Amino acid sequence: MRPVLLPRLCRVAVCGGTHGNELSGVYLVREMLKTETRREDGESASVLMVLSNPRAMQQCRRYVDTDLNRCFTHATLNGPVSDGTPYEIMRSRELNAMLGPKGSRAAVDLVCDLHNTTANMGLCFIAYSDSDWICLHIFRYLQMPDTPMRFIHFDVSNKESYSLYSIGKHGFAMEIGPQPHGCVKSDIYTAMKEGVQHMLDWAGYFNSGCLFEGGLVDVFTMVKNVDYPRDGETRNIMATIHPRLQDRDFCLLHPGDPLFQTFSGETLTYNGNEPLYPFFINECAYYEKGIALSLARKKCVTIPSIRAQTEEEEEQASEQSFASEEEE
Amino acid sequence: MRPVLLPRLCRVAVCGGTHGNELSGVYLVREMLKTETRREDGESASVLMVLSNPRAMQQCRRYVDTDLNRCFTHATLNGPVSDGTPYEIMRSRELNAMLGPKGSRAAVDLVCDLHNTTANMGLCFIAYSDSDWICLHIFRYLQMPDTPMRFIHFDVSNKESYSLYSIGKHGFAMEIGPQPHGCVKSDIYTAMKEGVQHMLDWAGYFNSGCLFEGGLVDVFTMVKNVDYPRDGETRNIMATIHPRLQDRDFCLLHPGDPLFQTFSGETLTYNGNEPLYPFFINECAYYEKGIALSLARKKCVTIPSIRAQTEEEEEQASEQSFASEEEE
Repeated sequence: MRPVLLPRLCRVAVCGGTHGNELSGVYLVREMLKTETRREDGESASVLMVLSNPRAMQQCRRYVDTDLNRCFTHATLNGPVSDGTPYEIMRSRELNAMLGPKGSRAAVDLVCDLHNTTANMGLCFIAYSDSDWICLHIFRYLQMPDTPMRFIHFDVSNKESYSLYSIGKHGFAMEIGPQPHGCVKSDIYTAMKEGVQHMLDWAGYFNSGCLFEGGLVDVFTMVKNVDYPRDGETRNIMATIHPRLQDRDFCLLHPGDPLFQTFSGETLTYNGNEPLYPFFINECAYYEKGIALSLARKKCVTIPSIRAQTEEEEEQASEQSFASEEEE
Repeated sequence: MRPVLLPRLCRVAVCGGTHGNELSGVYLVREMLKTETRREDGESASVLMVLSNPRAMQQCRRYVDTDLNRCFTHATLNGPVSDGTPYEIMRSRELNAMLGPKGSRAAVDLVCDLHNTTANMGLCFIAYSDSDWICLHIFRYLQMPDTPMRFIHFDVSNKESYSLYSIGKHGFAMEIGPQPHGCVKSDIYTAMKEGVQHMLDWAGYFNSGCLFEGGLVDVFTMVKNVDYPRDGETRNIMATIHPRLQDRDFCLLHPGDPLFQTFSGETLTYNGNEPLYPFFINECAYYEKGIALSLARKKCVTIPSIRAQTEEEEEQASEQSFASEEEE
């Protein structure tokens, strides 16, 4: 089969500090800004390092007014603003101007947004598509012998997609855990550093015309979130993740398996209809969002061989693509 | 040898939420407030459950204005206040009125203040004395088969002691980790619940006249804190705990051992003169305090047999004790 030809990745953005207390990305971007050296081979992508939420970083909090990584929907980016508009909504527009505009030809080719989680998730790619061959090929290229790796798919339309990485033509979050927020652990930092380095290496090889063979990738598609049992009046949680589920992200959860342990010691079980894969188990930033864990279905996606278009092919394809968009 | 006779523990305070994002204590105290049942045997201590910093709890932050658990020095408790006085300083006075006054006959007999740490410290007692036989006996009584236990001594005078538990006639922090702040893990919650239950059981046995045999206890006395290497200008950290030291709290650190790994990948070693025991390794709340880890010296303390005074002995001893204080 002929490989799928795709435009080169000329501009790549690596973002840290979208959540100000997820410190691996903050310190990695700061380090890369210090040591930034432009490669001379002409094939490498131009890399833009971005600290997304400086105010939240300064306070070592997830956000100041509202979660920045929920502000990149079409509606929020294009809504009215006033003096009372939350800081993060203003900041999302700045970032959209810098890296986007979202959905336009001017947007950067690839956004990699760096995140940490308190959940024992290893290294995850999180993306809004299960057929973005660029993201899936990069994922497959990353070899991290000591770090479990998974690809998570949030099935949300481009218009409704809310994350920073949705600004790019391609984009994903690189989510690594477990790490407490406000903390840097050397093993997690090193895994992230290697992940970003491999991604940039891949972009260079891709841009230089390498052929990447197709194959199979396991994709975890998010099905639903499960909240903690809560007190009807105070909304305080009345239980936490069961000790037999804690840290077992991506281990299949069967109906009847222990799910929560109440603070008085009672076990509550999973009463779903089908076995599903749990992830973001006990992510501490999600208590306020009403998420104790998320559940996913696993499928196997066949990805085609790909290679970058030559400049000529690119111009031709780009004209065709935007022409067909206009027809839609 | 005759046992040391000590006053009964009539009033015990169990405090949670002194740091609003250390959630094991928050949820344990809430649970105990719900299920509180006064024991009928007459020997049990009266137990006061306290949520120390409700405003910080509400925001799920360590503190609102300043660290409450540094506000209990003689100077802070007795300094001037105004409209601009930080919330936690006002709250420390309320707690001192409720559980103290610190250093007075009216103070509660025992304060147990519940804390979490992101460090891999197991269950620690932290106290300002290495010769408080009550605290040391309670520590020795706790049997937690799955939880490593240590006794840490901060050698600070009563006047300079800054923690909530210094209000009580006896007092200690029960510090358990690792747990991210803002998160509850069932194993850590359960260890804390059992620790508190054992402590209250011990107080009941002690009050009922049981003799507790003397013996030996290992005590880790804090020697010094070590800060992260920092950028001279920004004060940002330039390294984090070395992967070979991370999570190895209470494993002897020798001169020349790896201490930090810089964000560029360089190893920095421990250049102290003597081997010491590290603890609070990578506690995330201490980044702002300039503490990457603390170092302790271990010693073995001989504790005597103890039993509670009878009411008659108590009155007699109390009169003598306060008379001798007045002489000093």
